[in-house]
Amino acid sequence: MDWQQEYKDLWDLSKKIRTYDSILALLHWDQETYMPSGSITPRSEQIALLSSLIHEEKTSHKYKTHLEKLVSLSTGKPHAKGLSKKQLVATREWRKEFLRVEKLTPAFVKTFSQTTSEATQIWAIAKKTNNFKLFAPFLEKIVGLCREKAEAYGYTEHPYDALLEYYEPCVNTAKLGAIFDKLQTELKHLIKKIGSKKQVDDRFLKHDVKDAKQMELAQLILSKLPIESGYSRLDLSAHPFSTALHPHDSRITTRLLPKAFMSNLFSVLHEAGHSMYEMGLSTEHFGTPLSEAVSLSIHESQSRWWETLIGRSLPFWEHFYPLLQKEIPDLKKVSLERFYRAINKVEPSFTRVEADEVTYCLHVALRFEIEKELISGHLQVVDLPEAWNAKMKEFFGIAPPTDTLGCLQDVHWSLGDFGYFPTYALGNLFAAQFFSTFSKKHPDWEKQVAEGNLSFIREWLKKNIHEWGRTYDAEQLAKKVTGKTLCETAYCTYLKKKYKDIYEL
Amino acid sequence: MDWQQEYKDLWDLSKKIRTYDSILALLHWDQETYMPSGSITPRSEQIALLSSLIHEEKTSHKYKTHLEKLVSLSTGKPHAKGLSKKQLVATREWRKEFLRVEKLTPAFVKTFSQTTSEATQIWAIAKKTNNFKLFAPFLEKIVGLCREKAEAYGYTEHPYDALLEYYEPCVNTAKLGAIFDKLQTELKHLIKKIGSKKQVDDRFLKHDVKDAKQMELAQLILSKLPIESGYSRLDLSAHPFSTALHPHDSRITTRLLPKAFMSNLFSVLHEAGHSMYEMGLSTEHFGTPLSEAVSLSIHESQSRWWETLIGRSLPFWEHFYPLLQKEIPDLKKVSLERFYRAINKVEPSFTRVEADEVTYCLHVALRFEIEKELISGHLQVVDLPEAWNAKMKEFFGIAPPTDTLGCLQDVHWSLGDFGYFPTYALGNLFAAQFFSTFSKKHPDWEKQVAEGNLSFIREWLKKNIHEWGRTYDAEQLAKKVTGKTLCETAYCTYLKKKYKDIYEL
Repeated sequence: MDWQQEYKDLWDLSKKIRTYDSILALLHWDQETYMPSGSITPRSEQIALLSSLIHEEKTSHKYKTHLEKLVSLSTGKPHAKGLSKKQLVATREWRKEFLRVEKLTPAFVKTFSQTTSEATQIWAIAKKTNNFKLFAPFLEKIVGLCREKAEAYGYTEHPYDALLEYYEPCVNTAKLGAIFDKLQTELKHLIKKIGSKKQVDDRFLKHDVKDAKQMELAQLILSKLPIESGYSRLDLSAHPFSTALHPHDSRITTRLLPKAFMSNLFSVLHEAGHSMYEMGLSTEHFGTPLSEAVSLSIHESQSRWWETLIGRSLPFWEHFYPLLQKEIPDLKKVSLERFYRAINKVEPSFTRVEADEVTYCLHVALRFEIEKELISGHLQVVDLPEAWNAKMKEFFGIAPPTDTLGCLQDVHWSLGDFGYFPTYALGNLFAAQFFSTFSKKHPDWEKQVAEGNLSFIREWLKKNIHEWGRTYDAEQLAKKVTGKTLCETAYCTYLKKKYKDIYEL
Repeated sequence: MDWQQEYKDLWDLSKKIRTYDSILALLHWDQETYMPSGSITPRSEQIALLSSLIHEEKTSHKYKTHLEKLVSLSTGKPHAKGLSKKQLVATREWRKEFLRVEKLTPAFVKTFSQTTSEATQIWAIAKKTNNFKLFAPFLEKIVGLCREKAEAYGYTEHPYDALLEYYEPCVNTAKLGAIFDKLQTELKHLIKKIGSKKQVDDRFLKHDVKDAKQMELAQLILSKLPIESGYSRLDLSAHPFSTALHPHDSRITTRLLPKAFMSNLFSVLHEAGHSMYEMGLSTEHFGTPLSEAVSLSIHESQSRWWETLIGRSLPFWEHFYPLLQKEIPDLKKVSLERFYRAINKVEPSFTRVEADEVTYCLHVALRFEIEKELISGHLQVVDLPEAWNAKMKEFFGIAPPTDTLGCLQDVHWSLGDFGYFPTYALGNLFAAQFFSTFSKKHPDWEKQVAEGNLSFIREWLKKNIHEWGRTYDAEQLAKKVTGKTLCETAYCTYLKKKYKDIYEL
């Protein structure tokens, strides 16, 4: 048997699927950026068709046969001889992915795609008109489908485990619950301490900055980040996102809020972090798991890295603030220190996406608790708004005046993405862990960043995280890079130190 | 046999293919508009993969079996009973298309797609650097592939017939030659007469108009055209084009030349003409030939209709010129009459796309003669520049100073689109024929257009042309609408009358 040829054959099949995935990504990107508003129906049909094709290809007899030549599906023991370490990793991950995908029937995939496509449109209207009742029957269907999905994937403890695993395989509900418990205690304590201090004045961040100027600023910041030109682009969409068709075609979007110009810049930094991860994946192994992100948590660690650890740091603005002041003359009378405190102001708020670093993870913990209950059936969809508001009261001491600002705020549930939210918090934890190692390796990072030098950061991320693809799972990667497994300590230490200085705690 | 169900089954397969085609159209659109420049290689792979899939689906055993249930492939006689007239039309066209597509092997389709994808990139460099030699080997390959294609399709007289048929089935090389001969005589005569008159002053059309203002003007004109909002959009690309993913998603592009602002506006009118045709196709029958354009000639008749017959007419500018003057104050001192003469100035030029209405078809006739010779082997690729320049001298009395302005000017050959150019001329002929009937039906059209009312024009086009899809071929459609078959007379009459007034012949 020519094992190299066998490997190559499976790779070809896998690359074909990855290429279809890229095309699907373009359909989604276009829908959110430039698609004429009246063509949502044909677009849904295009997406459903391509999604079905991808599922067919992933579960085809041909694919299975090729995979089984390389590895035993039941035990995971490789049959192939003489494969390199990297090839063994790819084979291992191909098998894992196949076993997962195979559990869903084509009919289920189609129903799921159609239901969520319809639900997303309804959700947008419901959010706009603060009409939870309109969305409720769709959400009920989706919760039902997610339960079905959990049953199909299988689990030992909690049905939510099965959903969680899709986005972050290295944790389960119990482990996550324990981490969130500790995190909540620490965060609530920190919030309380901050709350007793004088509030930060951030009124100057609410200046009206015109769209064109906001886009100029976004492009200015992007041009100073260590990103290869020609492989990326920035556009506008209702909600910022990033998508990669290939390491050489990695796109981001932002949105412009007239009275919150920093929101746009932090979105750009966030999405650029995702984008740099995708651009840092191997082109040589494109089409194999060696050229894929580890998990959504690790992806989020990269976006939060650039948005918060770098992008909300003092040295970053030592370099960028003078540039910003040049573009927004009103800021000339505001000192760097005041600006720095303002962009790091901590206060309870209704929405996750605009939350500060300290309260952010509480928003996620809230969703985690609600998702678990919805999936287990302990919470009914009809009771969601009440449960949401009660939890808001419990976590933040405030309740949203509308469902638009409450349980309707995020798109994820309409997309059927139950199990996704926790990765937003885990991303912060991983990022802080990585950063702790990085800053020991580069003790002069603040000085360098203050001089506008950011390339060494990307090089470190590439070498330690991006280039490995799926060689390690999230926890193994953390262990390899930092010597420690997943843990909230680094994040809490980081927050406590940062906000001690800002709020003089 | 449930014939309605059988019809429905074939329609489903056809709709699937049409949906893949839509996705392919998006890949092309994105490549020309927003794709990061560095991702041409992955994009070529995406396009090649999807093109292969489409060819597979079009020639699949399943498709053939379903088609054969409805109709005899050899005789074209329907087996199905009780189909409506429209369904019989769809079945007839499905068969025709199948017989054509089936003649190409998957390997050929793949080679063709890869070769032309590579060649298009090389052509762009060759054009930019005036380096025909760089492009020549690729063009040679493509001519060879087109000959192969002609052999595969089959022909009785000239191999060029087989290529022509793909773009315009209602003509062959001989018939086209006869039409072009008569057209050339008429046009050359008209050009000579015009040449003896005082040249028109159009220097004021070369004012520098900024990009942003040019886009505003384009959007202004689009907003006044009878186009449904929400189904279309305008973007920028190196060369203007139009593409439709669906009647509800029909996109156009334009380009901005700093010292030729009218070029942009005429491009917009041209592409909007294509776009309105696509938007006028049936959504009810989407996925069948009843919702497809007749041919490229008829498509071009719609674009030239809006660009020239309407867009370069005096009444059109009676309405729009004051709006233009408001936006470009320098035009305030130029009378409508001078402006009208300037936008209709006739002069020999090197490039087709910027040619006036009188010389335009000569550019096409030139390419027709060269294509025939290349395909038949009477002209070698290496001799192309010389042959081109000699023909330019013969047709226009001028020879281009560079190949960039000569045989490298158009993208079509790099795309393998031999047989496409003639439809540019035929579009003008059909348009003039249609217009002659239209203006009899609406003798007050000039008055209405001068008042800015354009809806009745689109209604007429919809009812007479768009809504029929492929019910008739181009010539049958002309006969149905105008009572006459394809002929150059209406076009020549139109030109002679128009330019008699302008040049006081």
